[in-house]
Amino acid sequence: MARPKPISGFPEFLPAGRLVETRVLDVITATFELHGFTPIETRAVEPLTQLARKGEIDKEIYVVRRLHAPSSEADELGLHFDLTVPFARYVLENAGHLAFPFRRYQVQKVWRGERPQEGRYREFTQADIDIVGQDVLAAHHDVEIPLVALDVFGKLHRDLGLPPVNVRVNNRKLSEGFYRGLGIEEPAVVLQCVDKYEKIGPEAVTELLTKAGLTAAQAAKCVALAGISSEDESFVEQVRALGVEHELLDAGLEELAALVRVARASEPGRVAADLKIARGLDYYTGTVYETLLAGSEKLGSVASGGRYDSLASDGKSTFPGVGYSFGITRILAPLIGRGVLTASRAVPSAVLVAVDNEETREEAIAIARRLRARGIACEVAPRADKYGRQIRYAERRGIPFVWFGAASVKDIRTGEQVDADADAWMPPENDRHPRVVTA
Amino acid sequence: MARPKPISGFPEFLPAGRLVETRVLDVITATFELHGFTPIETRAVEPLTQLARKGEIDKEIYVVRRLHAPSSEADELGLHFDLTVPFARYVLENAGHLAFPFRRYQVQKVWRGERPQEGRYREFTQADIDIVGQDVLAAHHDVEIPLVALDVFGKLHRDLGLPPVNVRVNNRKLSEGFYRGLGIEEPAVVLQCVDKYEKIGPEAVTELLTKAGLTAAQAAKCVALAGISSEDESFVEQVRALGVEHELLDAGLEELAALVRVARASEPGRVAADLKIARGLDYYTGTVYETLLAGSEKLGSVASGGRYDSLASDGKSTFPGVGYSFGITRILAPLIGRGVLTASRAVPSAVLVAVDNEETREEAIAIARRLRARGIACEVAPRADKYGRQIRYAERRGIPFVWFGAASVKDIRTGEQVDADADAWMPPENDRHPRVVTA
Repeated sequence: MARPKPISGFPEFLPAGRLVETRVLDVITATFELHGFTPIETRAVEPLTQLARKGEIDKEIYVVRRLHAPSSEADELGLHFDLTVPFARYVLENAGHLAFPFRRYQVQKVWRGERPQEGRYREFTQADIDIVGQDVLAAHHDVEIPLVALDVFGKLHRDLGLPPVNVRVNNRKLSEGFYRGLGIEEPAVVLQCVDKYEKIGPEAVTELLTKAGLTAAQAAKCVALAGISSEDESFVEQVRALGVEHELLDAGLEELAALVRVARASEPGRVAADLKIARGLDYYTGTVYETLLAGSEKLGSVASGGRYDSLASDGKSTFPGVGYSFGITRILAPLIGRGVLTASRAVPSAVLVAVDNEETREEAIAIARRLRARGIACEVAPRADKYGRQIRYAERRGIPFVWFGAASVKDIRTGEQVDADADAWMPPENDRHPRVVTA
Repeated sequence: MARPKPISGFPEFLPAGRLVETRVLDVITATFELHGFTPIETRAVEPLTQLARKGEIDKEIYVVRRLHAPSSEADELGLHFDLTVPFARYVLENAGHLAFPFRRYQVQKVWRGERPQEGRYREFTQADIDIVGQDVLAAHHDVEIPLVALDVFGKLHRDLGLPPVNVRVNNRKLSEGFYRGLGIEEPAVVLQCVDKYEKIGPEAVTELLTKAGLTAAQAAKCVALAGISSEDESFVEQVRALGVEHELLDAGLEELAALVRVARASEPGRVAADLKIARGLDYYTGTVYETLLAGSEKLGSVASGGRYDSLASDGKSTFPGVGYSFGITRILAPLIGRGVLTASRAVPSAVLVAVDNEETREEAIAIARRLRARGIACEVAPRADKYGRQIRYAERRGIPFVWFGAASVKDIRTGEQVDADADAWMPPENDRHPRVVTA
């Protein structure tokens, strides 16, 4: 076959890039587990009737159908486009077997048939956490969730050199209460206009709002609200100064202030209340989160989420939840693609065990077994060859050590060769595994 | 919505089952890395033209299509049904960036639209290793690959309590050389008959072979060959005793004998030459492997593979390879479903940090942060409540420890409560993480 070409929107990494991705996912899932989230995985397909009820996203759904299915057979299944809809279904299906509040994480591919462009993919990996209650879920979980996200991003920055992030938070109760306090009856319409604030600016939003039927005074107040942000609780006073009153506004202000206060105590300077944050999805009912990667702000939010009070219901119980979704591909594909992140080597092996001649291959295999028994990744040279060639073979792969004969190991970077016991020798910690390195 | 029902053929695990699966995959991928295999991941879709060329499997392919694609748009993409075809494509696409022999592992879902039944799924997880050379690949890699598989299965047995396995090996050169030595010109036809040996027995195979045009003497020799098996190299003498000669037979005997000898030295009693093993797939050209799970032999082979000399070629180079594919879902779904394997608890948390009243929640969060900083998974009680209720909350989740106030921790299984420093206390090793337990 001719050399195949990539398919646009379906990114794949070379081995070094995939090594970076696995290390990033290891940090993320280990941190999720430290916070008590348990792993689940759902099938890739959902009934089309479940997927296709959300409106705007319908046109992006991929239908799945057996190649030889009779043409009379109706399409029934589609690939999931996020992990929230499948999770809501999983909770309903298994509610009798789950302990609530149920804390889960889920790392899977999702598929959206949208036009591929920078930061937009047709297949991409998401890592989600959610906490879901049965009938009730306390507001303090809205504070907890972004702290988990900050713990994750803090470790990715500290341990793997990813850029730091800033989390921006708003609360739909706050916005909706404010709009209702102004006498506006369709707060959803205002939210859609405010959602464009960052892109089109305050004047254009004012224009949209007056076109949508708001008075000049109402529009001015809404735009003033959207302009408020603060890293501490001072946003509350700024909102109060606008003179609007509504009990939903009070509830929203209180929730958001608690979030900012607790987050500031544990991760100062990383979380800001930002009252223009709207988030597209309909199902959010309270707190909403966005995350910007320092230096890649133009990518938009790389991790986002919020509170949803009625996404899942079986008629008897509702299952309110709050969650955060990390766009793994969206974060990593540009950084790996531009070479900002790579691996110290593209293979796990720390040691190449040289083979003198094919008669001694079994001895080399035995040395490799002894090294592996102590957690040292290694491979046996594929060809019995001159030592110089075996060293060049290791060099091309970035393997730092070559083992010779029964008891000798060479650091091929320094040329230093020492006597060594395959049951005792250890490579330096830094060389044991491929590391994520930043350019 | 009404309570959703599972979709036949698309298995999902409850959290305890998924915890088992993640631990099994951790052992598998860590072992792959110890042997120098590097991770890659390929997109879920391949061009239908690539997928649909293998004959028999075509009817199982799932086509993927955007819901709102114009009906004039031809179907172009399908979900991959294994990881070998995508890997061959990946090697061709990226050959210029890879170092050969290229050793990779890959753990992903695959999809096949076949009729669901015990041990057969429409969506399932495979874990594959392959070693691929450019133009050449030495025969010793055929010996290496099952040793990796045995290392994997040995650890799954020793560390996680999975059943032990037996690997059965044959070599297509051996069979084909033997058939040719008998003057048979279409060895593939004989192989298809011999493939049914286990199911229908030697008499019925003899009948099939004579129907296919073999003489009674030829058929008798072929059936005699298929009946040979041994855990050591003695199969060679048994084959020689049948008095057939061919150079391909010699090559096959030599390769298989080397494999059995080396495997026996490192993992005695686990590998047998079994000359009735045929494997369905056309692309194998030498060694073929099958793996049976002790106590679940009726599932058939749960991990299999072999040598393929011409799966991938770009016209200039060919890329011969040898690989092993572990049927993760096929191994685990029955064991988890029957309760043979489960997790010691369904949550990662080792500690529940109790909350006295909502005013002290932030202090509980600070305790949790200190525990997590030392790798102890914990969660903060969702409700300020009487201590007895918090203990029952932990009990229902299987969380072994409850932390009270600033400096006290209780093992809720024994009732023992001790003073403890959140910067120093450690749960016993056995309680730190959920463990895989066998019933």
